[in-house]
Amino acid sequence: MAKELKNFTKRSDNYSQWYNELVVKADLAEQSAVRGCMVIKPYGYAIWEKMQRTLDDMFKATGHQNAYFPLLIPKSFLSREADHVEGFAKECAVVTHYRLKNDPDGNGVVVDPAARLEEELIIRPTSETIIWNTYRNWIHSYRDLPILVNQWANVFRWEMRTRMFLRTAEFLWQEGHTAHATKEEAEEEAIRMLNVYADFAENYMAVPVVKGVKSANERFAGALDTYTIEAMMQDGKALQSGTSHFLGQNFAKAFDVTFMNKDNKPEYVWATSWGVSTRLMGALIMTHSDDNGLVLPPRLAPIQVVIIPIYKDAAGLKAVSERVAPIVDALRAKGISVKYDDADNKRPGFKFADYEVKGVPVRLAIGQRDLENGTAELMRRDTLEKEIVSLEGIADHIEKELEDIQKNLFERARIYRDQMTTTVDDYEEFKQKIEEGGFILAHWDGTPETEERIKEETKATIRCIPFEGDKTPGKCMVTGNPSAQRVVFARSY
Amino acid sequence: MAKELKNFTKRSDNYSQWYNELVVKADLAEQSAVRGCMVIKPYGYAIWEKMQRTLDDMFKATGHQNAYFPLLIPKSFLSREADHVEGFAKECAVVTHYRLKNDPDGNGVVVDPAARLEEELIIRPTSETIIWNTYRNWIHSYRDLPILVNQWANVFRWEMRTRMFLRTAEFLWQEGHTAHATKEEAEEEAIRMLNVYADFAENYMAVPVVKGVKSANERFAGALDTYTIEAMMQDGKALQSGTSHFLGQNFAKAFDVTFMNKDNKPEYVWATSWGVSTRLMGALIMTHSDDNGLVLPPRLAPIQVVIIPIYKDAAGLKAVSERVAPIVDALRAKGISVKYDDADNKRPGFKFADYEVKGVPVRLAIGQRDLENGTAELMRRDTLEKEIVSLEGIADHIEKELEDIQKNLFERARIYRDQMTTTVDDYEEFKQKIEEGGFILAHWDGTPETEERIKEETKATIRCIPFEGDKTPGKCMVTGNPSAQRVVFARSY
Repeated sequence: MAKELKNFTKRSDNYSQWYNELVVKADLAEQSAVRGCMVIKPYGYAIWEKMQRTLDDMFKATGHQNAYFPLLIPKSFLSREADHVEGFAKECAVVTHYRLKNDPDGNGVVVDPAARLEEELIIRPTSETIIWNTYRNWIHSYRDLPILVNQWANVFRWEMRTRMFLRTAEFLWQEGHTAHATKEEAEEEAIRMLNVYADFAENYMAVPVVKGVKSANERFAGALDTYTIEAMMQDGKALQSGTSHFLGQNFAKAFDVTFMNKDNKPEYVWATSWGVSTRLMGALIMTHSDDNGLVLPPRLAPIQVVIIPIYKDAAGLKAVSERVAPIVDALRAKGISVKYDDADNKRPGFKFADYEVKGVPVRLAIGQRDLENGTAELMRRDTLEKEIVSLEGIADHIEKELEDIQKNLFERARIYRDQMTTTVDDYEEFKQKIEEGGFILAHWDGTPETEERIKEETKATIRCIPFEGDKTPGKCMVTGNPSAQRVVFARSY
Repeated sequence: MAKELKNFTKRSDNYSQWYNELVVKADLAEQSAVRGCMVIKPYGYAIWEKMQRTLDDMFKATGHQNAYFPLLIPKSFLSREADHVEGFAKECAVVTHYRLKNDPDGNGVVVDPAARLEEELIIRPTSETIIWNTYRNWIHSYRDLPILVNQWANVFRWEMRTRMFLRTAEFLWQEGHTAHATKEEAEEEAIRMLNVYADFAENYMAVPVVKGVKSANERFAGALDTYTIEAMMQDGKALQSGTSHFLGQNFAKAFDVTFMNKDNKPEYVWATSWGVSTRLMGALIMTHSDDNGLVLPPRLAPIQVVIIPIYKDAAGLKAVSERVAPIVDALRAKGISVKYDDADNKRPGFKFADYEVKGVPVRLAIGQRDLENGTAELMRRDTLEKEIVSLEGIADHIEKELEDIQKNLFERARIYRDQMTTTVDDYEEFKQKIEEGGFILAHWDGTPETEERIKEETKATIRCIPFEGDKTPGKCMVTGNPSAQRVVFARSY
C-alpha cells in the first residue's frame, strides 16, 4: 500500500499525468459525476481554507468588507456591456425552468414545460453585471465612495477541456468589486490588490511571480487594463495566478451608475475587480511537488509537523507517547499545527509514505531507542533529508526548520524560474527556445496582429508586460518595428 | 436623517413590516434583481461571518472537516431516493443549456438551441444525493468510517413567497453529511450536532430553543428522524432554527454505498445530515430587536463598542481623540471590537441613531466636559439605559457590560418564551389560545391525521416532541386517544 501510494508517474515522463495522479493520491480532489466539476476533498479543502483565511485577512487589512450577491444573473444583464458578453457570457449554464414533475411514464422526474422562466437566468461566470446593477442604488454622492467589497463565491463557466483546480466548470474564488470617485483612485486600487496577490503568492505559497499588465488581447472582457501575476510551473509553462482589472467607467455606463461629485455634478463611477481562485491550488502543486508527491510550504500546510511513533508493543507505544505529549504541547504553544499519528492499524512505513504524498513539511519519527538516546529522526519534505536531532529544545528546532523550508521552497522556485527565463532577439531562435519551455523576454511591436501571429506559429502568448526589469526600448523580433520594452512570452495553462 | 433612520413601523402595528424595514435600514440585506434572491450587504454579512466562524470552530472541535461538492446535480440523482424527490426536487432551478449566442435579430443574446444538455442539471436544493454518490467510492471497509464532513455552500429552492433571510430562493448554509458503521453511532451524531446547534443558539445568539424530534409530517424528506431546535419570535410564532437528520440507510441504499464490517460482511452505511442557514439571521433579528432597530448579542456583533466624540472644533476633537486612543487599545487588548467614529461629515445625533439601528451593544460618548470630569456617557443597546461612567478602568467596565448584555438578552428572551408557553387540554381552548401566539403544550394521539386536522383548522403545526419537560402521558385533545407526552404546537415561519 505504501508503495502503491508513492507509485507515481514521474514528472519527467509525463508531467500532466503526474499532476492528475498527484491530485488524487494526495487526497486533494477528484472528478465528480458532473462533467467538468470536481469534488474538493477534506485535505485539499483544508489547504484552500488556509489560503482563504490568509487572503481574507489581507483584504480586510486593506479596508475591504465581504458581502454576497446572487448566484443567478438575468440573461439581459450580460449583454449590457458589449465586450463583457463577447468574452464571457456565451459558455455558461443557463437556467430555463423552475420545476420538475413526475414523469407521466413513471420514469423518475422530467422538466415541467409549464414552468418555463420568462427570462432565462445564467449561473454567474463572474459578477460584475449583477453587482454594478446593485451599486446603482448604493451610490449617489462622492460621500458614498469608495465601496470596497469582496465576495467569496462559486462561479461557473462551461469549459470544454477541464483539469482539476486548473480549469474546472465550477470553481471557488473571491471577486473584489470596488467603486471609486476618480480614475486615479481606481487605478491605485487595482495595483494595490495585484500587490496583495503577489505578496500572498510569494510569502505564503512560496511561488515567485512576475507582476505586469496584460496586452489588449489577453485583457479581461470589459476591462481597460488587466494586471496579472504570472508564475512558472516546473514544466516551464506559465500559470496566470491572479488578476486585477481597472474597469474604467465601462460597467458604470452599462448600468447607469453615477454620483454627484464635490462640485455637485453627475459623473460615472470608476471601477475595479480582482480575483483569485482554486486555480491557486494548481499553482501550489506544480511549483513545489516532486515525484514522491505533494510538497507544501509550511505557511499553508494543514499539518505542519507529523510525529510517528515506532514501537513493538503497547508498553513501547505508551513510553513514546508520554515523551511526545510535551513536544506536541510545546509546538502548539508556538502556533504550529502538529499531528501525532499513533493509529495502531497502519504501519510506520505506510504512514511515512502517506504523509510524504500529502506534503507534510516536517516528519518526526520517535522509536524506543530514540527515547534512550534522547533523540528523534527528523525528515524535511522539501529536501527529503533526514537528520538525528536532540529532543532537547526540539520545538525551537522545528520552528526554525519550518521557516527554513518556507524560504528554501521560494528560493528553489525562484532560481528555477530565473534559469528558465531567457532573452531572445531573433524570431527563429524564439521558435526553438519556446519548445524548451520557460519565459522568454523579447521585443514586440505592441500590435494585436503580431501577438496573434506569434501565438498561431508558436502557441506562446504574451503573459505580461512586466513592471520590473529591463525597460530598454528595442525592435520587434517579428516585424522589426519599434518596441517600448521587452515583454514576457510563454506557453501557458 | 437621524429621525428618518429610526422612523420604523412599530412592532405592535405590523410585525412583518417592521421586520422588512429593519433588514433594510440596518443595512443587513436588500432584494436583488433576481426574484426571491437577496443581496447580503457588508454589515449583514459581517454578522453571518461571525456565525460561520463560531459554528465552524464548533464543528471542527467535534471532529468534522470541510469539503466541497458540486453545485449542480444530475436530474436522475434526485429520483433515486423516493421520499427525497417528493419533498425536495420539484421546485428547483433547472439548467437545460450550456451556451448563449448572439440574437440573429441583434437584440442581445439568446439561448443556443444547439447547446441543449443530454441530461438536465439541477442547482442543489441540498446535497445528500451528490454526496452519497461520491461516498460510494470513499467507503469500502469499516476502517473508512466514520466520515465526518461539512460543506459551506449556497443552495437554491424555488420558493413562491420569499422573505429576506427567512425564506429566500438562494440561501447560504452549511450542510454536514456523515457516514457511520452503526445505527447507534449515526443516531448519536445526529443528536450531538443538534446539541451543537442549541449551544450556539443559546450561548452565542442568546436565543433560547426547545430541542426535540419532529413528527412524521414535518420530517426531512428522506430522513427516519429529524431533530430540531425551535425558537420563539417576538410575535409568538415559532422559527425552526436548525435541524439534524438521522437518515438511516436510505441514501446508502439509493446510491449503493456498502462497507465490509468487522465480520467481513457487506452492510449499508448509516447516515446523518444537519444544517443551519442564513435563516439564523432572521431568528437573531426577531428575537432581540426593538422599535429602534437591531439589537445584537455582543458575541455576534461585528462592532461591540462604538465611541463617539462630542466636540466643537478641531482642538476639541484632538483632545477627545487623545484620551480615547488608550481606551481603544485597552479594549482591543481584551479582544473587544471597537470603532472610534470621528468622521467629521456626520453629526453625533446621526451617529447615535445609526449605531442604534445597527444594534451596536455599547455606545460610549465622550465630550470635552467629560474630559474635565474624567467620565463618559455609556449607553447599553439592550435596555437603552444611559449612565455616566468613570474613564478609570473603563475597559474592564465595558467588558462586564458586554457580558451582562449577552446574559440579559438571553434571559429576556427566555422569560418571554416561557410566558408565552401554555399548557392546554381542551381543543376549543387550544383554538382560542393559538390566536394569541406562543407555544402550546398539548396532548396528541401521534397520528398524522390528527396533526393534519389541527393544522387545517388552526394553522398550527407540531414544532417538535420535546426532549425535556413533562413526560406524563395523557389523552389527545382532539380524539381522546392515548398520548405518550405533550408536544409543542405553534404557528410558525
